Amino acid sequence: MSKKIVTMGEIMLRLSTPGYLKFEQANSFDVVYGGGEANVAVSVANYGLDAYFVTKLPKNPIGQSAINSLRQFGVHTDYIARGGERIGIYYLETGASMRPSKVVYDRAHSAIAEADVSDFDFDKIFEGADWFHFSGITPAISDKAAELTEAALKAAKKHGVTVSVDLNYRKKLWSPEKAQKVMTNLMQYVDVCIGNEEDAEKVLGFKPGETDVTKGELELEGYKNIFKAMKEKFGFKYVVTTLRESYSASDNGWSALIYDGNEFYRSRKYDIRIVDRVGGGDSFAGGLIYGLVTGQNFKDALEFAVAASALKHTIPGDFNHASLDEVMTLVKGDASGRVQR
Amino acid sequence: MSKKIVTMGEIMLRLSTPGYLKFEQANSFDVVYGGGEANVAVSVANYGLDAYFVTKLPKNPIGQSAINSLRQFGVHTDYIARGGERIGIYYLETGASMRPSKVVYDRAHSAIAEADVSDFDFDKIFEGADWFHFSGITPAISDKAAELTEAALKAAKKHGVTVSVDLNYRKKLWSPEKAQKVMTNLMQYVDVCIGNEEDAEKVLGFKPGETDVTKGELELEGYKNIFKAMKEKFGFKYVVTTLRESYSASDNGWSALIYDGNEFYRSRKYDIRIVDRVGGGDSFAGGLIYGLVTGQNFKDALEFAVAASALKHTIPGDFNHASLDEVMTLVKGDASGRVQR
Amino acid sequence: MSKKIVTMGEIMLRLSTPGYLKFEQANSFDVVYGGGEANVAVSVANYGLDAYFVTKLPKNPIGQSAINSLRQFGVHTDYIARGGERIGIYYLETGASMRPSKVVYDRAHSAIAEADVSDFDFDKIFEGADWFHFSGITPAISDKAAELTEAALKAAKKHGVTVSVDLNYRKKLWSPEKAQKVMTNLMQYVDVCIGNEEDAEKVLGFKPGETDVTKGELELEGYKNIFKAMKEKFGFKYVVTTLRESYSASDNGWSALIYDGNEFYRSRKYDIRIVDRVGGGDSFAGGLIYGLVTGQNFKDALEFAVAASALKHTIPGDFNHASLDEVMTLVKGDASGRVQR
Amino acid sequence: MSKKIVTMGEIMLRLSTPGYLKFEQANSFDVVYGGGEANVAVSVANYGLDAYFVTKLPKNPIGQSAINSLRQFGVHTDYIARGGERIGIYYLETGASMRPSKVVYDRAHSAIAEADVSDFDFDKIFEGADWFHFSGITPAISDKAAELTEAALKAAKKHGVTVSVDLNYRKKLWSPEKAQKVMTNLMQYVDVCIGNEEDAEKVLGFKPGETDVTKGELELEGYKNIFKAMKEKFGFKYVVTTLRESYSASDNGWSALIYDGNEFYRSRKYDIRIVDRVGGGDSFAGGLIYGLVTGQNFKDALEFAVAASALKHTIPGDFNHASLDEVMTLVKGDASGRVQR
Amino acid sequence: MSKKIVTMGEIMLRLSTPGYLKFEQANSFDVVYGGGEANVAVSVANYGLDAYFVTKLPKNPIGQSAINSLRQFGVHTDYIARGGERIGIYYLETGASMRPSKVVYDRAHSAIAEADVSDFDFDKIFEGADWFHFSGITPAISDKAAELTEAALKAAKKHGVTVSVDLNYRKKLWSPEKAQKVMTNLMQYVDVCIGNEEDAEKVLGFKPGETDVTKGELELEGYKNIFKAMKEKFGFKYVVTTLRESYSASDNGWSALIYDGNEFYRSRKYDIRIVDRVGGGDSFAGGLIYGLVTGQNFKDALEFAVAASALKHTIPGDFNHASLDEVMTLVKGDASGRVQR
Amino acid sequence: MSKKIVTMGEIMLRLSTPGYLKFEQANSFDVVYGGGEANVAVSVANYGLDAYFVTKLPKNPIGQSAINSLRQFGVHTDYIARGGERIGIYYLETGASMRPSKVVYDRAHSAIAEADVSDFDFDKIFEGADWFHFSGITPAISDKAAELTEAALKAAKKHGVTVSVDLNYRKKLWSPEKAQKVMTNLMQYVDVCIGNEEDAEKVLGFKPGETDVTKGELELEGYKNIFKAMKEKFGFKYVVTTLRESYSASDNGWSALIYDGNEFYRSRKYDIRIVDRVGGGDSFAGGLIYGLVTGQNFKDALEFAVAASALKHTIPGDFNHASLDEVMTLVKGDASGRVQR
Repeated sequence: MSKKIVTMGEIMLRLSTPGYLKFEQANSFDVVYGGGEANVAVSVANYGLDAYFVTKLPKNPIGQSAINSLRQFGVHTDYIARGGERIGIYYLETGASMRPSKVVYDRAHSAIAEADVSDFDFDKIFEGADWFHFSGITPAISDKAAELTEAALKAAKKHGVTVSVDLNYRKKLWSPEKAQKVMTNLMQYVDVCIGNEEDAEKVLGFKPGETDVTKGELELEGYKNIFKAMKEKFGFKYVVTTLRESYSASDNGWSALIYDGNEFYRSRKYDIRIVDRVGGGDSFAGGLIYGLVTGQNFKDALEFAVAASALKHTIPGDFNHASLDEVMTLVKGDASGRVQR
Repeated sequence: MSKKIVTMGEIMLRLSTPGYLKFEQANSFDVVYGGGEANVAVSVANYGLDAYFVTKLPKNPIGQSAINSLRQFGVHTDYIARGGERIGIYYLETGASMRPSKVVYDRAHSAIAEADVSDFDFDKIFEGADWFHFSGITPAISDKAAELTEAALKAAKKHGVTVSVDLNYRKKLWSPEKAQKVMTNLMQYVDVCIGNEEDAEKVLGFKPGETDVTKGELELEGYKNIFKAMKEKFGFKYVVTTLRESYSASDNGWSALIYDGNEFYRSRKYDIRIVDRVGGGDSFAGGLIYGLVTGQNFKDALEFAVAASALKHTIPGDFNHASLDEVMTLVKGDASGRVQR
Repeated sequence: MSKKIVTMGEIMLRLSTPGYLKFEQANSFDVVYGGGEANVAVSVANYGLDAYFVTKLPKNPIGQSAINSLRQFGVHTDYIARGGERIGIYYLETGASMRPSKVVYDRAHSAIAEADVSDFDFDKIFEGADWFHFSGITPAISDKAAELTEAALKAAKKHGVTVSVDLNYRKKLWSPEKAQKVMTNLMQYVDVCIGNEEDAEKVLGFKPGETDVTKGELELEGYKNIFKAMKEKFGFKYVVTTLRESYSASDNGWSALIYDGNEFYRSRKYDIRIVDRVGGGDSFAGGLIYGLVTGQNFKDALEFAVAASALKHTIPGDFNHASLDEVMTLVKGDASGRVQR
Repeated sequence: MSKKIVTMGEIMLRLSTPGYLKFEQANSFDVVYGGGEANVAVSVANYGLDAYFVTKLPKNPIGQSAINSLRQFGVHTDYIARGGERIGIYYLETGASMRPSKVVYDRAHSAIAEADVSDFDFDKIFEGADWFHFSGITPAISDKAAELTEAALKAAKKHGVTVSVDLNYRKKLWSPEKAQKVMTNLMQYVDVCIGNEEDAEKVLGFKPGETDVTKGELELEGYKNIFKAMKEKFGFKYVVTTLRESYSASDNGWSALIYDGNEFYRSRKYDIRIVDRVGGGDSFAGGLIYGLVTGQNFKDALEFAVAASALKHTIPGDFNHASLDEVMTLVKGDASGRVQR
Repeated sequence: MSKKIVTMGEIMLRLSTPGYLKFEQANSFDVVYGGGEANVAVSVANYGLDAYFVTKLPKNPIGQSAINSLRQFGVHTDYIARGGERIGIYYLETGASMRPSKVVYDRAHSAIAEADVSDFDFDKIFEGADWFHFSGITPAISDKAAELTEAALKAAKKHGVTVSVDLNYRKKLWSPEKAQKVMTNLMQYVDVCIGNEEDAEKVLGFKPGETDVTKGELELEGYKNIFKAMKEKFGFKYVVTTLRESYSASDNGWSALIYDGNEFYRSRKYDIRIVDRVGGGDSFAGGLIYGLVTGQNFKDALEFAVAASALKHTIPGDFNHASLDEVMTLVKGDASGRVQR
Repeated sequence: MSKKIVTMGEIMLRLSTPGYLKFEQANSFDVVYGGGEANVAVSVANYGLDAYFVTKLPKNPIGQSAINSLRQFGVHTDYIARGGERIGIYYLETGASMRPSKVVYDRAHSAIAEADVSDFDFDKIFEGADWFHFSGITPAISDKAAELTEAALKAAKKHGVTVSVDLNYRKKLWSPEKAQKVMTNLMQYVDVCIGNEEDAEKVLGFKPGETDVTKGELELEGYKNIFKAMKEKFGFKYVVTTLRESYSASDNGWSALIYDGNEFYRSRKYDIRIVDRVGGGDSFAGGLIYGLVTGQNFKDALEFAVAASALKHTIPGDFNHASLDEVMTLVKGDASGRVQR
């Protein structure tokens, strides 16, 4: 089933220390490329859909390598503009046990942060498109990027494209005040809203319940109230959140909750031994989009998304390389991890 | 105590992705050599016995490297024939948590699959031998290999050698029908039969009980009935199985059950954090052979085998490099993992 | 707050196998430098104190690399003597699950083992110093090193420096009889004594209680009796021990107990997924010294030390690279391991 | 300038030892994918043309990784059939000085060797195509592959596509007799023929001159006679050869000769410090095709091809990653190797 | 002989591809830290002088790692300011043969580029200093950095410190016009001026002779005229240049020329097999400073500098790790490369 | 042709820096095992002879790994004694161009240095042996090792075994006076003496000619006079030397000279691009022994030895992994380095 999925945002060079080395110990960095919406694009391409990633990258070999990485995993790169000063970078140190993973960003002045609406032909981009996904990171990286996001959303709506957002609050990029000002406006274009309690509060201004995420507790009831309020205010078709229980950097509980305006559905919960946690939320969004755009009901789509993203936590890098078969096997209940010969 | 142990089968080039990388992410493969009976040979050589591995390998540097790897770990390679087209290969991707390890075989047309009985002098091979071990994989790889296996078994019996088999059903290599036809015949030569419920059903046609291996449950009673039937039908001296509880690709429960025609004995159970699961069963067989051939009683031999193979799960590669001392320390009960200085 | 901390002992070249490889499988060794007192020096330097490490190292590039490693992590190396035959070496194989890590020492004839009191100007070294730390390893490596230790202790006391010891019994280096003879004498200079039950028995001759460390059980009452006796006999200001519950090589419980002559205080307990256990005790000593020398009360200092050393278990190498901020975050209670962006 | 270039053949998994290790020393293999026509496709894609590679690959993750590798470097993979037993493999050991590089092939029974004409829609493949390239390796791998090659050639001619061949004799794949029988027939479809003296003799039956390639001597006159005869017999538009002077495995002279039926032109000669010699000839073919298809005169095209392939010798792997700019800089004469900042 | 040497400039994170991989092939980057003046500081520290490097680095673990790298190799980091947005980065791809090494800079907005004069206490920095070195890169990175440079130079002169400059023109950082405007003014503070013909023309406006550096030719006479003019105009004590004959990226000729206002002296010339060319010029400056500040005559200092920097070309990374002994052995004439046991 | 070759000496753990890193830069060491006589044993085993290596190694996993390495490459390890304190170590830094490779020894107190004659059963060792080889290093490592060497030589002579020596003077191990005292006595047992001018002077007291080895010049006449004198004094059957012209650490000329008491024969000379120079002389000895013991005339044996050892220079590690076929191809004249497919 061919579907055209468009995502737009920043793809960064990720420099991570090998194994569990701390930054101060590293004499080499492992190199992959990743970023919220790029990760989503790879996920859906991996399941066989036609994924297009929209961004701007510098005309140098590092920018080219980011493009090559997307092509390698089946994402269409036709709409990527070239130019600008630099590619954004993030440094990653992988934690273990009670030591958290640490991300150091160096993304200011990136090509996409300084891109212009005129760099892209949105009518062409959204022609024939079925879905558009963005995250709250993109409008946060600069005022120009916020403009760009709104331009994309308007074009998407003009072409009748379904829109999803992952709220994804990043405190290093903007304040709650700024976030709410920008994002509240953008919500008018959104059909499917993904975001946890912290996102809902910081990005959209909804008061949290008693959840204390650092303690791994989950206040489902609090979520339900917020979801209803979000649905009411913005008219989302679905409101969704992942439910991460962070026992430690090595072990997490992982499930999700969806609300269709009528019913709440909580997915199966997985207990995960973590290999690489980064991109977990993006792989969830990718799975959810795959499920919904290919006609699964919202409960099946949620289970697909949770299984897909559980698998992502066991795969190094930002991208989810779990195949459709692998996700389906897990959805169907085999989590035994027995060798597949 | 010097004992001559002969094993026969295929040794393959194993190409595994580093760390937890998926195949699509790998830019290098770690290289070791391994295969059911070769792994058993290394185990018993490692405990100080005289192990001889019988196979055929191509006359090229890759075939030579396989031989060198056996020699490195103390296996005698005098009886290995050289020639044929290629060495068999298997690709391995190591799983974690709910993501299973994945094996892709490329073993057709290997030298041993196309080897002839005339490539080997079985009278010389079994002269003075104490034990012969093979697995259900060897007769499965080709009709010629099945003939070869029977020729070896006849010679072994002629020389009064004790014979063990690890049933090891491989659905990619043959159907249950074919397996049962070939293997039922070969059981007449066998003294010690190792195999789990799936093996017993697929290879020998014994109906399974209610065990659902993907759920990590164990139906000991079912095993007992099957073991009695197997003993009765084939006259085995011992019937043995490992009991793997596959909680996930990262964590397994590990124990074993033995039946001497009179009494059932279940070993201590280990909960294992898995480093490399491949070769776990082979290291069990190696441990059991070591125990029995050196005169331990069958319960002690079983405990030795389970401890040895538990350790194998913590060691990268197909081979078990746990030393006799290390196994004995664990048998004696120290599983605390405290640093040995 | 600038404090001058002096530690003295041996720094060795550590050659460890990558990943979980056994020695027999290794084709390369990872290289770091480490040793009890050097590890303590790095810890306190890392928290911003002025750490000086005293040792002797050969005048060759390997000795220089050890010095460079100390400098890299902020330790002052001005008092290190150069000369002698060789640098001590230890080989390390990292265990997992029920397979213990294994250390093979090759430290005889090292420069520090054969160093002379005249190689060092202890008056200069302890001028303005606030703290001196040594371990039971240093006097164990040779008779000359025992003399050297006493010379240092005398000078430290002359300069009014607080002294801590980590008893650290090493059975490969000396017998309990020899240890007790040497160490009992040195205890007169000590203010803060760190050591577990085994150390107390082997090094100082205190009878253990029922604790069976290989079973992961802890007999707190036994400790209390011993602590009281130690305090009474030697007049220590504080007696301290870490409490390791060794579930396996992969998972440990980790806490500590302190006695100020008046009150026993047991710290919070951490359950740790272990990355590298070596240097865990040294990072505890480093944390304790930091806490006490910067004026924390003894309970806070203990919590700081336990948190610091819990983090060390998640970091490869001998040194603790956890920053002051990272330790404080954990002390304050966030052990959730959530990604820090 | 957009051009559609089609190449067809086998892409193999290349397993090479790191550095200058011999096979017997390797504990890991570096992994890339490559093969004559695939290498050509990457070259022209790299210069900005629309390259399509036609082959068949197994439906497993290794086959997928080969496809991903082509996509990564900009080759269209739409026409690749999936199925068959295995991907062909070649093992590579990189030589130095007087020690030659060594290739061990394991390519029998590969998916493309057993592919059927019906696996491909050649009318669609050659629709709008400008150029088709194949090598003498493809028809050599099996009789079916020879049939497939002729089917492709007929379709190419039907669609008015220019055809080039690289004769590339492989003695492990077929005898001169077999080669001549198959290839002589296929020459009727060829416009541009690339091949050295050995190829001309073994593949097409032209008697060599006095050239002794192992001595690095070059008999230009001999080439001229053969080129004239080849042109006369088969009506090629251009006959071309590279001229390798193999001083050692580390240093080669590199130039080329072209004949347009009228004039012989010999290129500039480069003295190369070799990093990776494999794929050198393919990168030459890729450069030549680029030059000719984009309208360069045959002398400029030859210089482009020689410069491009000289650069390939300095790049690890089968593929030529030298950019259009890099090749043009060298064509224009800057071989100084000064750092480009 | 203890001397205080101060250098000031930018230290960057260097990300280089392993071996001869091109950027597009890299899945990891080797990590070192380096930059013109930092490299000089390491050189002189390595010879035993007291080297102080002045810069500003962000308060994050990457900035800390740069500091650690300097400390590791003996440079004093007391005067380094902390703060600012980011550390500058450069990407490096190592060339071979006719393929040049390629540098991609990402250094805009670095902490030092945006540092303020008030970040440094130049009176303290130059108290007791013997030498100050900077390069033409530092004032080029920003207007603020140019101000900073002049402030440092004024303070240096106030404290009677000898000043050297390496003109080092970087066309990506500024135009010749801008360079000349800024640098001409700074030359009043300079005693020793290092720069090649290109530098002299672009940075100081002196017309070049006939030298065509891309051809590896050297026009000594042209240099002499320029040196005289430079000396005359700015009153330098010494004018110096390295003479690089760039045969290829793998092989260079390397020598130098010095003028003391009276006499020209050309050093011995080395033919170098290049391992890593980056930092070659900086190691020359470091060697020259060492020679002159320790009282060698200018010819001996030049020979020391050329030998030191010839050795640098054989060492990976930006820093020169050749020891004083190693340089002296080469100065004394042993370039045979025989194993030193 | 089966021949029993015995060699005796020290095998060390070799720790070398990867690539061209200097010791101070290394974060890992590559691990192989090697030593003069062990290297010879591997060479002759590699050509198909029965090689036995005699040494003593500690009973720890590092000692075992050394044994495994010998077994891997076909050397019989039956006569190796186990025990003692440690395995000797040498650190290696690989040079390039004018930077020499550097070896740091840490071999004192090794098991073989402290081995006793009673550790070995020389009658059994030399039973049926054809050849015994030792080097001047073995008696140099300790007085006990010198005794051991003489005991072995006496036993060898008793069993009619041909004896060869490689004089191999090591100035770090003994003085010329000590060397001459010990070695002059041992020469009575020697049939074939290998040594260059420096060896002849330092070990046997023969005055050198004008050869200045650091200049790469060769004074053949000087050699001839010394060879005649050596033959006369000690009655050697053959006197042999390699002739290394050390242009740089990267490039050497390599040939050899033999004297049979009647005629001088100088081999073909190879110009080598060096990958790893260590073990070059040992591979020469191995080649010479192979040639002579299998009945080649002394000139052919010399050419075999020179070709074999030229190839060794292109192979990483101490051991020569060049196969019999590879050596013979080079002996027959193909040094073109063309890819072998």
